[in-house]
Amino acid sequence: MRALKLRRTAPFFFLLIGLITRILKLDAQAAVPLALMPMPAHIIPGNGQFVIDGSFGVALQGYKEARLVTAEDRFLAALTRETGIPFQQDAQPDQAKFIIQTSGPSDPVEQLGEDESYHLKITPSGAQLMAANPLGVLHGLQTFLQLVRVTPQGFAVPVVAIDDQPRFAWRGLMIDAGRHFMPIPVIERNLDGMEAVKLNVFHWHLSENQGFRAESKIFPLLQEKGSDGRYYTQPQIRGVIQYARDRGIRVVPEFDVPCHTTSWFVGYPQLASGKGPYKIETHWGVFDPAMDPTRESTYQFLDRFFGEMTALFPDAYFHIGGDECDGKEWDANPRVQAFKQAHRLKDNAALQSYFSARVQKLVAAHHKIMEGWDEVLQPDTPKDVVIQSWRGPTALAAAARQGNRGLLSTGYYIDLNQSAAQHYLADPLGGEGASLTPEQRARVLGGEATMWSEFVTPENVDSRIWPRTAAIAERLWSPQEVRDVDSMYARLGAISQKLQYFGLDHLSSSEFMLQRMSGETDPRYLKVLAAVVQPPEGYERGQLKEYESTTPLNRLVDAVSPESETGRRFAELTKTILAGNASPEQWQEERAWLVLWRDNDAKLQPLLENSDLTAELVPVSRTLSQVAAIGLKALDDLRSHRAPDGAALQNNLQVLKNAEKPEAVLRDMVVPPVGLLEQAVAGH
Amino acid sequence: MRALKLRRTAPFFFLLIGLITRILKLDAQAAVPLALMPMPAHIIPGNGQFVIDGSFGVALQGYKEARLVTAEDRFLAALTRETGIPFQQDAQPDQAKFIIQTSGPSDPVEQLGEDESYHLKITPSGAQLMAANPLGVLHGLQTFLQLVRVTPQGFAVPVVAIDDQPRFAWRGLMIDAGRHFMPIPVIERNLDGMEAVKLNVFHWHLSENQGFRAESKIFPLLQEKGSDGRYYTQPQIRGVIQYARDRGIRVVPEFDVPCHTTSWFVGYPQLASGKGPYKIETHWGVFDPAMDPTRESTYQFLDRFFGEMTALFPDAYFHIGGDECDGKEWDANPRVQAFKQAHRLKDNAALQSYFSARVQKLVAAHHKIMEGWDEVLQPDTPKDVVIQSWRGPTALAAAARQGNRGLLSTGYYIDLNQSAAQHYLADPLGGEGASLTPEQRARVLGGEATMWSEFVTPENVDSRIWPRTAAIAERLWSPQEVRDVDSMYARLGAISQKLQYFGLDHLSSSEFMLQRMSGETDPRYLKVLAAVVQPPEGYERGQLKEYESTTPLNRLVDAVSPESETGRRFAELTKTILAGNASPEQWQEERAWLVLWRDNDAKLQPLLENSDLTAELVPVSRTLSQVAAIGLKALDDLRSHRAPDGAALQNNLQVLKNAEKPEAVLRDMVVPPVGLLEQAVAGH
Repeated sequence: MRALKLRRTAPFFFLLIGLITRILKLDAQAAVPLALMPMPAHIIPGNGQFVIDGSFGVALQGYKEARLVTAEDRFLAALTRETGIPFQQDAQPDQAKFIIQTSGPSDPVEQLGEDESYHLKITPSGAQLMAANPLGVLHGLQTFLQLVRVTPQGFAVPVVAIDDQPRFAWRGLMIDAGRHFMPIPVIERNLDGMEAVKLNVFHWHLSENQGFRAESKIFPLLQEKGSDGRYYTQPQIRGVIQYARDRGIRVVPEFDVPCHTTSWFVGYPQLASGKGPYKIETHWGVFDPAMDPTRESTYQFLDRFFGEMTALFPDAYFHIGGDECDGKEWDANPRVQAFKQAHRLKDNAALQSYFSARVQKLVAAHHKIMEGWDEVLQPDTPKDVVIQSWRGPTALAAAARQGNRGLLSTGYYIDLNQSAAQHYLADPLGGEGASLTPEQRARVLGGEATMWSEFVTPENVDSRIWPRTAAIAERLWSPQEVRDVDSMYARLGAISQKLQYFGLDHLSSSEFMLQRMSGETDPRYLKVLAAVVQPPEGYERGQLKEYESTTPLNRLVDAVSPESETGRRFAELTKTILAGNASPEQWQEERAWLVLWRDNDAKLQPLLENSDLTAELVPVSRTLSQVAAIGLKALDDLRSHRAPDGAALQNNLQVLKNAEKPEAVLRDMVVPPVGLLEQAVAGH
Repeated sequence: MRALKLRRTAPFFFLLIGLITRILKLDAQAAVPLALMPMPAHIIPGNGQFVIDGSFGVALQGYKEARLVTAEDRFLAALTRETGIPFQQDAQPDQAKFIIQTSGPSDPVEQLGEDESYHLKITPSGAQLMAANPLGVLHGLQTFLQLVRVTPQGFAVPVVAIDDQPRFAWRGLMIDAGRHFMPIPVIERNLDGMEAVKLNVFHWHLSENQGFRAESKIFPLLQEKGSDGRYYTQPQIRGVIQYARDRGIRVVPEFDVPCHTTSWFVGYPQLASGKGPYKIETHWGVFDPAMDPTRESTYQFLDRFFGEMTALFPDAYFHIGGDECDGKEWDANPRVQAFKQAHRLKDNAALQSYFSARVQKLVAAHHKIMEGWDEVLQPDTPKDVVIQSWRGPTALAAAARQGNRGLLSTGYYIDLNQSAAQHYLADPLGGEGASLTPEQRARVLGGEATMWSEFVTPENVDSRIWPRTAAIAERLWSPQEVRDVDSMYARLGAISQKLQYFGLDHLSSSEFMLQRMSGETDPRYLKVLAAVVQPPEGYERGQLKEYESTTPLNRLVDAVSPESETGRRFAELTKTILAGNASPEQWQEERAWLVLWRDNDAKLQPLLENSDLTAELVPVSRTLSQVAAIGLKALDDLRSHRAPDGAALQNNLQVLKNAEKPEAVLRDMVVPPVGLLEQAVAGH
């Protein structure tokens, strides 16, 4: 009789995995006819498609330069990865089916505000890309690659006409290489990712309390004593700049002064306001060390250092940081106090303002435009200084009103584990920005995603940057009215998959880390848990546990995505059910998920003790099981219109309240939707 | 009532995935206390373990050289990938817990037969590695990395004492870069894989009818006209040689003459026996073009070319190919015919022998030892010529009897999609080799896995090489009596996972390719099918379908492993059942698999038509379903001791017979075990 029983139940296995597939699967072709991100400014869809086969070739017409030739090579290599078809790099121009027409050169060093527009037209027999300069060509090639999809006729791009240009001229990604060093391959593959979504500024945060990461030949103790030996040599930096230029990306270096500078002082303590000696900081947070703004030798040092670095980095902009001075070393130093009095500087903000003004003159003398964080903005700040706002749209709008240009990073802090939707809806001209005059609005240059690196390593940094940064890229490129979150998520899934073609590890690193932490080759029960937890939002992680720069980041919190896709979809499904719009199949899906989570603990629990790294998950797994059981009961009560059991209800609400608190530095994303189910039952 | 039904059936889902997990999962720690491959010569296991944490450091003692320092750096980087723990590269020697003691240098250019032994001792408080020279250190470091596992106390290595040295001095992997070019990163990551399993010869097959892949400065048309622009520059080649030396690997280049030489003749037709003109061959097979052995200018060319290449490649051995001449160009050329008569060369074999002897003198004049395939062996072949045997152990033994040294490649042709077990059991001293005298046996130097590249691209080549080559590496390193296939497979799974740490794509490329061919982000039904099919063995693939060098290798046959692990385990399970040794749980497992395969077709079938690349799988999926249904019926009949239905039986046997034939160039590995079930029912 066992056999019979098995025969009956087996189909349910497929029903269940069918449901799971339906809820998780994104069929790019069917659901998202044009899975483009960022969405182009103008699209005219057509009928039919252009099939890509081994006869596909590219011809460059009009203006030519080496960058266009390498762009063509990279395009064909990417197309080979997308299709598995080997393309001949030396196709005869007269047989080429993809014609690229470039009108002229772009500037020798990429300038803010250069023409980045392109026109892409695809017909059933071929494709044409036209642009004023190579920048537009680069963007258009990426749009083409995003259009490629597999069809019954083979790989193809749909017939379409696209006219495209960016909304904002400054679309950046900052990577903090100070706190955790990021080797060159990490930088390069992320530049590839940036190109794929049309970001055009790589902001390289090169110095921090925890490490000085750029080689100075004039002041070699900066990197020699100010790092653990991991820094970028000048040839490597030149290589990155070339790599970025090939991809239409400017490189803006940041050397943060006068604070965030402990690593400078290890080799050059004379720059500091404190007595020293200094050592490389191994903790996270805001620290006291600050440059001595009273000594001429400080400015002489900076002048020579800036001279070296402005020669190394060709971009017109030069970021000097300027954020988060706590002033404690200044307060403790009598010379600094005397200086403030002598110069009638009423407080440390005024002192920093004095310092910033001196620094601005040094930067300007080296023919660069200074950029700094919010703090550098003072009433007398020169109008060409660009403000990067971490304090918010109000601060950004204030800068614009004062006549300074600025860019938004508030809302784009991708280290804070916020949802793609939150980032997506943050607009550089939202909030206070909406009330600016047209002239003031023009001073808002764009924005930058910021990858601060307290909690990332080369291993998992891709999963923090991608795919969420693609949503930010769309905010900065596409028209302001493109803001449908559902459409964004549907396209984000397709783009995320394509980003793999550029060597980004954002999808594969998690699996690898789960295998390692469990010691299993197929940690499937751990994966069930991993799919519904995520790191806490904001700065809570550092409050939950003590971290140092040497703390291994090899636990579940480091392996899971900052935004649980399963959790997000389950929450959507729950809302559909509670809105009364769910099909019987959706009720079944919801139930299948809850059963999966309720029963997973019994399988996972015995395995967790096998590893030091998973032992902390014992309560996390147990809580998921309890929460799912509550959800299951609530769902069944709702379905059968049963009245809730009052005592159980109170108890359940308490369990859910407790479950909201992170365990093992992880949030359980099943809790909020189950809370909604339970509340619906309570209100029944 | 639906809810109740779901509640009842849901646990089966977990029962089922539990079963699947049990059958698929390899818990390295539990099942395989020392998951080492190759198995060391002598192991003394101990009690306890040495825990690896952030305080771990390495100290080099005794002889030092740059290679040891970079080996230490690479070791720590690999250990970081294995553990996620950031290690300080500059640990204080007096605090180091891993002491490496090197007695002296190895030869400036690695020599065949150098001492490769090492002694590794691990105690609860630390580890010690001792070796005569850096080669032993490199091997010992890899053994240490293989010992690392996650435990309840954190990452650790078990207490053990290992004394190890290789059985054979020549343990190689050949990569054919001629037919499909393999970029430098592919070569480098496979050198990493070779180091991990203690292989020590990289045989670089650099010229073929389909492409000449090494830069010659003296004869630049070789690469310029003889390739599609994809070739290795001399600096790149020097880089690979250095990369290999850093890993204790010799690099032996092969320039195949006098045949397999079409690509040479595109730029230098005067070398050929035919009239030309020649163009790069785009098909696979044996071709007619052959060098003209009658002209002195041929030897003058080769002398100058060998001079350039022997200077570029420092290894003492130089491979001149010499295989597969069909003689047709010679037969068609009156001058060659006249030459044969004049020199009393009775046939083309004798003519080639003449050529080989001339070539051998050229090679020897450049102070290199010639190596060639079986065909170069003639009665008068100089005794120092090394024979690489592709014809088999009998040919190899004949060479040894004749006084020539040789190595085995028969049985190690990893392009032929044989099982790891088949490769594993092929022994260089098996068959005829067993009857050799000790002196003759000593002439058998070892063996080489050969990765011929008709059907591989940079994308899937890793999955053809790994993990099966690790089994070959064990055959060549470990004592002859280490030949338990079950133990090999258990350890192979663990090693396969660890090989990922070196950037090898052998496990990840399949998933990626399935996504691409289906256009789905989660092609789970396709994966069920993919897990039980594999490419046909031997040379059948080329007979089933017409392939050219430009044919995209992006179909299921290219994505799946050469050896279906699921198929192998299902076959094992079936044998256990038929032997009457199966537990009730194993009967259940067997049934669950068959149900999974029977029902998968209904889910997969509608998806297959979405893509040109999966449409050919329609019959493959249907056949799997039919075969599984037959197996299910047979299993249930066996279980319940039911007599078979004679008519159905005949029909089923016919279906199974048909199903043995490849469809879409794929073998269904469920067919053989289901055939066994059906035969058992028939014999009931």
